[in-house]
Amino acid sequence: MKPLKIGMIGFGTVGGGVAKILLGEAERITRRAGRPIELRRVAVRDLNKARDIDLPPGVLTDRIADIVDDPEIELAVQLMGGTDPAREVMLSLLSAGKDVVTANKALLCEHGAELFAHARELGRSIAFEASVAGGIPIIANVCCALAGNQITSLSAILNGTSNFILTEMADKEESYGDVLRRAQELGYAEADPAMDVDGTDAAQKLVILTLLAFGTAVSLSQFPCTGIDSLELDDLKCADELGYVVKLLAVARLHDGKLELHVSPTLVRKHLPLADVQGAFNAVKVTGDAVGETWFSGQGAGQLPTASAVLADIIDMAVGRAQLTFKTLVLPGEGAEYEVQPIDDIVSKFYLRFNALDRPHVLADITDILGRNGISIASVVQHESPEVQNGKEPPVPVFIMTHRTTEGKMRAAEAELNRLDSLHSPCVRMSVAE
Amino acid sequence: MKPLKIGMIGFGTVGGGVAKILLGEAERITRRAGRPIELRRVAVRDLNKARDIDLPPGVLTDRIADIVDDPEIELAVQLMGGTDPAREVMLSLLSAGKDVVTANKALLCEHGAELFAHARELGRSIAFEASVAGGIPIIANVCCALAGNQITSLSAILNGTSNFILTEMADKEESYGDVLRRAQELGYAEADPAMDVDGTDAAQKLVILTLLAFGTAVSLSQFPCTGIDSLELDDLKCADELGYVVKLLAVARLHDGKLELHVSPTLVRKHLPLADVQGAFNAVKVTGDAVGETWFSGQGAGQLPTASAVLADIIDMAVGRAQLTFKTLVLPGEGAEYEVQPIDDIVSKFYLRFNALDRPHVLADITDILGRNGISIASVVQHESPEVQNGKEPPVPVFIMTHRTTEGKMRAAEAELNRLDSLHSPCVRMSVAE
Repeated sequence: MKPLKIGMIGFGTVGGGVAKILLGEAERITRRAGRPIELRRVAVRDLNKARDIDLPPGVLTDRIADIVDDPEIELAVQLMGGTDPAREVMLSLLSAGKDVVTANKALLCEHGAELFAHARELGRSIAFEASVAGGIPIIANVCCALAGNQITSLSAILNGTSNFILTEMADKEESYGDVLRRAQELGYAEADPAMDVDGTDAAQKLVILTLLAFGTAVSLSQFPCTGIDSLELDDLKCADELGYVVKLLAVARLHDGKLELHVSPTLVRKHLPLADVQGAFNAVKVTGDAVGETWFSGQGAGQLPTASAVLADIIDMAVGRAQLTFKTLVLPGEGAEYEVQPIDDIVSKFYLRFNALDRPHVLADITDILGRNGISIASVVQHESPEVQNGKEPPVPVFIMTHRTTEGKMRAAEAELNRLDSLHSPCVRMSVAE
Repeated sequence: MKPLKIGMIGFGTVGGGVAKILLGEAERITRRAGRPIELRRVAVRDLNKARDIDLPPGVLTDRIADIVDDPEIELAVQLMGGTDPAREVMLSLLSAGKDVVTANKALLCEHGAELFAHARELGRSIAFEASVAGGIPIIANVCCALAGNQITSLSAILNGTSNFILTEMADKEESYGDVLRRAQELGYAEADPAMDVDGTDAAQKLVILTLLAFGTAVSLSQFPCTGIDSLELDDLKCADELGYVVKLLAVARLHDGKLELHVSPTLVRKHLPLADVQGAFNAVKVTGDAVGETWFSGQGAGQLPTASAVLADIIDMAVGRAQLTFKTLVLPGEGAEYEVQPIDDIVSKFYLRFNALDRPHVLADITDILGRNGISIASVVQHESPEVQNGKEPPVPVFIMTHRTTEGKMRAAEAELNRLDSLHSPCVRMSVAE
């Protein structure tokens, strides 16, 4: 049967993994795809960079145009990161009549609705399994395998770096900074880990899942996003004492007909499935109106897990399934869309930590501000203050769990709280999963 | 767009759920399927039976021929159980030019390879998501979403009734018999629960997964299958003390190039994901050579979860995906097939419980038999014997954990052990997951 000729743009970790499997397991892939997959061109920035995989002669090029302009190439595997020039490259690939497989979450988060609409107009298809949750085939499950359902809620651990850091902090009782440094040495965290630890990466993935599960295009500015970068070991210990573990959760759920969205470090009851997700693993809980709760879990990143997702898309394109799936995606403007719940209206229980100076009336000030903002307190823990160190009075951690309240009330209270002279540092806040 | 006209054979719990969603959520299903799905005929045995869902007039029939012979019906949803006449009905549906969606695991376990080959010859397709693990879309994930991988191992909880009984026994410290009766009252267990609790149901599902993941057709006689029906509360308590929970595990894995298969109650380390699967939930751990470990979990039975799986197949048929998937399934004779590891060669650690009479030399007899069969003992627990009750000396439970040994040695030893006069009942055996 006629081979499917593909061009790959970008040849980093994931691209290397895809090439390794395409070249090393050609017979198996051909059987699954119903025809041979030929890796015709691979475009890279630097032809002379050392690589741990040998491509056949003539495959490597430093000109993206060699892929865009090659009429034999039907499918482009676009593995470049960022949005610029990735957006332009994808538009030119689509315009040149190619289907596209991509792993670029930032691109799809920011321009997904536009790119999908553009591909539809041109009769082309985009597949993007690898853009969310690495090796977990969550896109296929949300778009196809659960298609009989109205999905009512998604609750997910989508950032492996954050989950690795939280797991190690809790298991080894190490500080955030120490674990982050170790994660960087081990290659689990980037040299600049900001997007991972501040929640942005998880939020971008949540935007993509929301588009698919709820047919609704949202932007990062429409929902609250907090990362794990202000957490201290004390927070994890306190959560543990209370019977919880801390996870960076991304949540999208229908609530009174509106779409509630947020990314935040969250206290999850011990031994619930999401609480037991360890290290760099990802997990997604999907609730559907027919299927009830389902769970998907696996490695959220890494060369071969991500290559597994890219290969599923390549095989789906070769078979013709991906084109059918892309046609039936219910995109914004095509079905029931949901209004995003205003940030201030989101309801949750919260965990708060204050590093207070050991002065009279501190607890009274804190509880007064919470009370005046209509937030009622479920529990308070303040331990006896530690000894004076080097003549300095160390701050005393005060932990407060609230009853259910709104994000709006909480934000108003936080603004007031953080103006208190008696706080050593801004209040740290987490959600509590119910 | 032209509607897809379907005929449904069987209108029990699952069929009712499918009809409820098709009729109640027609707009949503149409959007996902790209065209309307019309439930044209539903064949039942008894037209007069009361049903909790109203079908449009003229839909209900008591003649399967009304579906087989209707040229307008392109897709049959075959929800009858058992193999006879289900096999003949499926053959006649395929011969009449219809694609088939089925939930019948017994049929596919026994005749899957034949039916699939027959459908291929006729250019027809079969989809069967609902035959394994209820609402968990495990068939789609094994066949499509993980297609870039060679699956190397499947380890699964596939029988919800058994898992419900084991969970309740452990949580409420109730006997097997008491929980089974309650499960029957609640509708979680059939009036005749034999196929569920003796492991057959899980083994049938394992046969289907093995066909898909390893392209190898196996029969139930080729691998050991033990149920939970000889377990006592003592076994679960002993497992708990040792740091384990008991799960009925179905396992298929490549081992030295051979396929190791078994279904047995198994000690799983506490807090591993499979150990935390509660109640009637199912779970499947799939290991692939690229993706590593992935987990899928959800409700293993029930009206709407199973209907969710049937609807995924119906939508896939309407879209055309299911036909492409069926074409690319690598069936026996089409790819790498694996030899099944001989039963006697399967290696495991075992847990053994003996109900021994409190006599001299009992433990010596047991350990002598194990030793002569080459089985070495990792640990022994025997508590002081209970008080004499009603003048009768109650049997004393003796628990033994072995080191790794083979099924063959274990079976030989068991045969000898069960001839000992000093045992009150046959030895109970479980595997220990590593």
